[in-house]
Amino acid sequence: MAEASSPAPVIILNAPQLAENIGAVARVMANFGLADLRLVNPRDGWPQERAWASASGADWPLNAARVFGSVTEAIADLQAVFATTARPRELQLPVLTPRQAAGELIAGAEAGQKVGLLFGGERAGLETAEVALCQAVVTIPIDPRFRSLNLAQAVAINVYEWRATQADRPPPNFREGPPPATAEALLGFYEHLERELETAGFFHPPEKTPNMIQNLRAALGRARFTDQEVRTLRGVVTALSRGRGKVLEKIARRKDGGEA
Amino acid sequence: MAEASSPAPVIILNAPQLAENIGAVARVMANFGLADLRLVNPRDGWPQERAWASASGADWPLNAARVFGSVTEAIADLQAVFATTARPRELQLPVLTPRQAAGELIAGAEAGQKVGLLFGGERAGLETAEVALCQAVVTIPIDPRFRSLNLAQAVAINVYEWRATQADRPPPNFREGPPPATAEALLGFYEHLERELETAGFFHPPEKTPNMIQNLRAALGRARFTDQEVRTLRGVVTALSRGRGKVLEKIARRKDGGEA
Repeated sequence: MAEASSPAPVIILNAPQLAENIGAVARVMANFGLADLRLVNPRDGWPQERAWASASGADWPLNAARVFGSVTEAIADLQAVFATTARPRELQLPVLTPRQAAGELIAGAEAGQKVGLLFGGERAGLETAEVALCQAVVTIPIDPRFRSLNLAQAVAINVYEWRATQADRPPPNFREGPPPATAEALLGFYEHLERELETAGFFHPPEKTPNMIQNLRAALGRARFTDQEVRTLRGVVTALSRGRGKVLEKIARRKDGGEA
Repeated sequence: MAEASSPAPVIILNAPQLAENIGAVARVMANFGLADLRLVNPRDGWPQERAWASASGADWPLNAARVFGSVTEAIADLQAVFATTARPRELQLPVLTPRQAAGELIAGAEAGQKVGLLFGGERAGLETAEVALCQAVVTIPIDPRFRSLNLAQAVAINVYEWRATQADRPPPNFREGPPPATAEALLGFYEHLERELETAGFFHPPEKTPNMIQNLRAALGRARFTDQEVRTLRGVVTALSRGRGKVLEKIARRKDGGEA
């Protein structure tokens, strides 16, 4: 996948409680190409070994993480910050889906702005005063029957959307597959198959043969076989037909009182 | 957000290692309105208390989770299963983004199909033979520089996309007509075909047999055969490999000195 064309958003965690979650956030940031992590008053202080232990090797966001005493300081240099929260606010701020937020963050970054995403702590979430420092609220479309979303999962969904929107195209296929076989090659396979089926007495009653052939061709045609696959399938038909020959010989030998 | 309009996909975890991850998967399934969790050979057995401990109250997917001895058994009743994997495959299967996959899963469910998402274990991931049982590969647009994505994060991104796409309601893109056969019916056809090919000496050299079988399954699987088509194709295999008796009788009569 091509590298991000605009700077990635900063991730700000306000009062995170568990070092394991901070490490999991670093890991998923690395998964999607983000590196700038900022911590506001981590409950158990900083650094904490358990964060590195749970980052599975994504050490660089942790090594470079900066600690701040308030959200205001942590976002001071940013020009656009969106607050991720599920709780309704009385604030007059636009409420965006992660996908909409990703689009706006990318547009901002492309316009030369430093952008960020603010997340609250595991229990307390964000104060309205902290949300009020942001330009928009991002709300993940969660099932109202079970709102307890893990902090690292909330970060994951937002940074995934950032990268997916950044790419705005499917990831390149592992390898571009060969094109489908020509109609001629397909027809050759169909006719080969149908000849063998005719020999085997598959088509009966005779008046149904055209329909049976059409349905068989339509079903197989949906696979859009490549030339190589058509060759393989013709080998399959040949092998099965010859196999029949072997069976016949054996039966014939048996009829002759030959060895079973 | 409105309740999901079509049944949610089944989540299948193949050989999950850590109970904490199984619990985290259940939690994020609950976050996005999914409930049907299936476990194939969980490394440490099942049930495991640590799974419930890490689900933060999302107990119902764990309480209802079913354990299977193989992927084929776990997906037997499903009509569309997509494999989530980042590893390149030689298989000719469509490669979808989580968003594209969500659209197809929803369209399939709206067409009455039972659909599922298959995830590999933390370390091993999925075997190619297991991916070959699926109709498509889902690849998360991850940064190639750090591919180690946590299992629960991979599930989170896919089930988030499922729920987010539910809201968008794309037009069904599955074809009209009868639904695809179940994985069980398909596997029965594959094994029938492979038995006959084995008998016919098609698989050689022997060391290439697994690859030949995987490629054959992936190619045929792309057609998404219906139950009727699977029955017809088994008839095709039987006819090619045995004939319908007619040929046998004729030859037998010939051997007995009867009329040619």
